[in-house]
Amino acid sequence: MKLAVIGVGLIGGSFALALKKAKAVSHVVGVGRGEQNLKLARERGIVDAIAPDAAMAARDADLVLVAAPVAQFESIFSSLRDSKALITDGGSTKRDVIAAARKALGGGIGRFVPAHPIAGAEKSGAAAASADLFQGRRVVLTPLAENSPHAVAKVERAWAACGARISQMPADEHDAVLAAVSHLPHLLAFALVHEVAGRKNSEQLFSFAAGGFRDFTRIASSHPEMWRDICASNKDRMLEELSSFSRKLDQVKALLDDPAGLEKLFAEAREARDRWIRSS
Amino acid sequence: MKLAVIGVGLIGGSFALALKKAKAVSHVVGVGRGEQNLKLARERGIVDAIAPDAAMAARDADLVLVAAPVAQFESIFSSLRDSKALITDGGSTKRDVIAAARKALGGGIGRFVPAHPIAGAEKSGAAAASADLFQGRRVVLTPLAENSPHAVAKVERAWAACGARISQMPADEHDAVLAAVSHLPHLLAFALVHEVAGRKNSEQLFSFAAGGFRDFTRIASSHPEMWRDICASNKDRMLEELSSFSRKLDQVKALLDDPAGLEKLFAEAREARDRWIRSS
Repeated sequence: MKLAVIGVGLIGGSFALALKKAKAVSHVVGVGRGEQNLKLARERGIVDAIAPDAAMAARDADLVLVAAPVAQFESIFSSLRDSKALITDGGSTKRDVIAAARKALGGGIGRFVPAHPIAGAEKSGAAAASADLFQGRRVVLTPLAENSPHAVAKVERAWAACGARISQMPADEHDAVLAAVSHLPHLLAFALVHEVAGRKNSEQLFSFAAGGFRDFTRIASSHPEMWRDICASNKDRMLEELSSFSRKLDQVKALLDDPAGLEKLFAEAREARDRWIRSS
Repeated sequence: MKLAVIGVGLIGGSFALALKKAKAVSHVVGVGRGEQNLKLARERGIVDAIAPDAAMAARDADLVLVAAPVAQFESIFSSLRDSKALITDGGSTKRDVIAAARKALGGGIGRFVPAHPIAGAEKSGAAAASADLFQGRRVVLTPLAENSPHAVAKVERAWAACGARISQMPADEHDAVLAAVSHLPHLLAFALVHEVAGRKNSEQLFSFAAGGFRDFTRIASSHPEMWRDICASNKDRMLEELSSFSRKLDQVKALLDDPAGLEKLFAEAREARDRWIRSS
């Protein structure tokens, strides 16, 4: 199988490495904006060849992974209009990606099986790619009515070959779930660091920040452009999550006058988290 | 030097183990509420003897560490009124601890040198204690006007013997700094987990939560009683931090309509965090 990877970053590079390791692909062509990054991808054996654009890369490919920032998806899909290859993606949001694909692929939309590998990291680029990134991680497919069972099965097999656990759900549901457990926490972490960094005594504040702050804010070291696109495309769900969270903060604020009630909330949160950790 | 530890948990137990390892203490007496925990502290060699109450434990001690939940401090300090030992503590807030000490120790307040080892963890109890917990971590002393330089130096030496980096600042300043970089993040993490756990589809939500969520919420597995006390005692600062953070969230919310502005905020946050990580 020949693979084309559009955007050879953490996700795209790891997909290529994982499929090579699983001997599920024989040849990988990469496309990307950063020359240094592509050079590194070639040196690391992530890609075997580099193509000047997505159309050229997809020419002989059986499978194309689109793993660029989501804002570029529409123009990438346009370049893939004439290809015959099956297409999947690594976008963190699905409704907007599907809308872009429908617009650009037209009647060829059945060739696109949307996917979201839930395996981000605060690192990015080909340098961070790893054959094991998806091992044991979830990949959510949000198949379209136009996808043939065969196309879905083939894309599913590719992600499964990376070691991922595959789920399927509608794109709507995907974006709502991810807004709650991924997009909102990222916004909160970015917001907290920005707040601390903007204070007059920010240097002092950071110097007394410890392990709790470090872990809480780890995701604030994520890729700004990628998160800009996620926020823009999932705006309605983000606004809902921000509203729900503000209501929860009002509840916590009120409980500052009710120590027993506050302790109960803390204990319930701890129990829920510990249960989750044990089961995962 | 003989040490008495009131509350042989993560902090108290680690202080005893670290000072024993540094050969700075020869004998440790422990006091606590949990029989099982004290038994384990004895088995692990954290304490050499167990006393029925703080007054008995402090009778022959040179140094007493009060490391119980902060709500118990006043009654513990009352038991220490007649002792001659120098006293320090492990409380995460300082204004309330000092107020409790002044009330209970009266004219003996000069014997108490307040301290906050910034070395929490989501684990608790003697089982989690470690001789290395304070290694390279910050301990903030908030000395009182009544402390002699000798008393401050002696307490500083004890914490330094645990491998900690010592700072001094007024209690007011300490509580403001910690509200921003520790107390607020804890509240946010507890709130987020509580919000997710309270949803109808909480099981689904948790099942798609990944590493970002896990790290962001690690501190939501912290001790509910301890955090109840911290919130109660630092309420004014927490309210200020909650207000500032709400304003920041309003800014982020508005930026959902301004992708370039949002990306700028994300980039500034990432840069500030990465700079902090590099320097720490």
